[in-house]
Amino acid sequence: MVENWTAEFLNFAMTLADTSGPIIRRHFRTSMEIDTKPDNSPVTIADREVEQTMRALIAEHYPKHGVFGEEFGKNQTNSEFLWCLDPIDGTKAFTSGKPIFGTLISLLHLGQPVIGIIDQPILHERWIGSRGEPTYLNGSQIHTRFCSTLEKAVLNATSPDMFIGEDWGRFRRLAEKTKDTFYGGDCYGYAMLACGHIDLVVEADLKPFDYLALVPVLQGAGALISDWQGNPLDLNSDGHVIAAGDSKLLPKVVEVLNAE
Amino acid sequence: MVENWTAEFLNFAMTLADTSGPIIRRHFRTSMEIDTKPDNSPVTIADREVEQTMRALIAEHYPKHGVFGEEFGKNQTNSEFLWCLDPIDGTKAFTSGKPIFGTLISLLHLGQPVIGIIDQPILHERWIGSRGEPTYLNGSQIHTRFCSTLEKAVLNATSPDMFIGEDWGRFRRLAEKTKDTFYGGDCYGYAMLACGHIDLVVEADLKPFDYLALVPVLQGAGALISDWQGNPLDLNSDGHVIAAGDSKLLPKVVEVLNAE
Repeated sequence: MVENWTAEFLNFAMTLADTSGPIIRRHFRTSMEIDTKPDNSPVTIADREVEQTMRALIAEHYPKHGVFGEEFGKNQTNSEFLWCLDPIDGTKAFTSGKPIFGTLISLLHLGQPVIGIIDQPILHERWIGSRGEPTYLNGSQIHTRFCSTLEKAVLNATSPDMFIGEDWGRFRRLAEKTKDTFYGGDCYGYAMLACGHIDLVVEADLKPFDYLALVPVLQGAGALISDWQGNPLDLNSDGHVIAAGDSKLLPKVVEVLNAE
Repeated sequence: MVENWTAEFLNFAMTLADTSGPIIRRHFRTSMEIDTKPDNSPVTIADREVEQTMRALIAEHYPKHGVFGEEFGKNQTNSEFLWCLDPIDGTKAFTSGKPIFGTLISLLHLGQPVIGIIDQPILHERWIGSRGEPTYLNGSQIHTRFCSTLEKAVLNATSPDMFIGEDWGRFRRLAEKTKDTFYGGDCYGYAMLACGHIDLVVEADLKPFDYLALVPVLQGAGALISDWQGNPLDLNSDGHVIAAGDSKLLPKVVEVLNAE
């Protein structure tokens, strides 16, 4: 179901990505001050400049829309439309010179993610998802691959350090049942899942601006994405995420993660 | 000290990389059969085609040279000159669509690595190291960054799964003393260290074709590279590797890894 505002806002989301890319390319692999935020995650001038630029564009074009960004927080979050922004998802990859981070742009309508963009400005790759529509990578429709058993599935997670307390044991129990487990990637792992190169991404400790843009991108590519109980993701999810390229995998992952 | 054969063999090593790149680009992000080798590592038609092509070129041009490759083993390893080849270092990254793998080409003279190339054919990045010479990335001289204390150092390792038995505890003890630890990367982590974007790579369970090409690349960029005891790497090293961008870091890493 494409609403009459979808095309306009999708176009605007692409304008946001067109604006963020050059800022990131200018800073990539330069010597940057890396500050540490209270949650111990890193932030650079590039993260801040990108988010400020996107927020200014939103305020100019859609002053009634809300904004929730990683670096500058929440603004008018009770609005009908809410933009969730992660200027650089994968700041650690960005600061270490690896071009597998991304700018995440999502639009929520009445709390539901309806537009999602993953933009990789160094490789000039852009994944575009829009509720009810197929997902596109640089203009080509993409789809996940078939893989219905854990034994054949390739699993990805950004880092073992994202699994706190008993989450690590739950994740390892799953990893041991899969064919292989790769680390690293941030949003790029989900983008590769959408393209059919890996089968599962299972992560924890994510924030809404980390996962909301992924929802339309993955759903439009044929994937399922949920929390560790199998529930849909929204602003209030607890930061545990399962993405499965083949819908048959999701209940199996939920079962293993929650086994007593 | 540049021997009179260095320029010739360096040129030939670049020809090997010029030949491997197009093969890899042709297979990247296509649907490939992924076989599992006896050591549980993956291999694809791309790995095999690249190594076969490089071996054929070496046999044609330098029939007296030895070859030691990841996929097709050893040949004339007692020769004065020995080519060590990893057609795709980071096959897992390659098969999952992430362009942070590399082709590793090294030449050993009397057992010592004298030429090393890291070639990333998707991003068209090539690091060239030659004993006694500065290291170049795509024609530009590169250098590591200064970082003399563990507390400020960014550490990289491909995967926690490479640390078997007590190695994991030793690695974690080190990781906890650093500023941050990132996972993923294979040879790309070392390449980023050579460029000054990260400070340490500490890994285990590597094979000679995984680390020998790194030695000239890192040394020419100002880095130190050794095993976990601080000894130079050669064909008979035990697969434990430390790379430090700042020479002051190396003894500190050795001390922490070997603390009782």
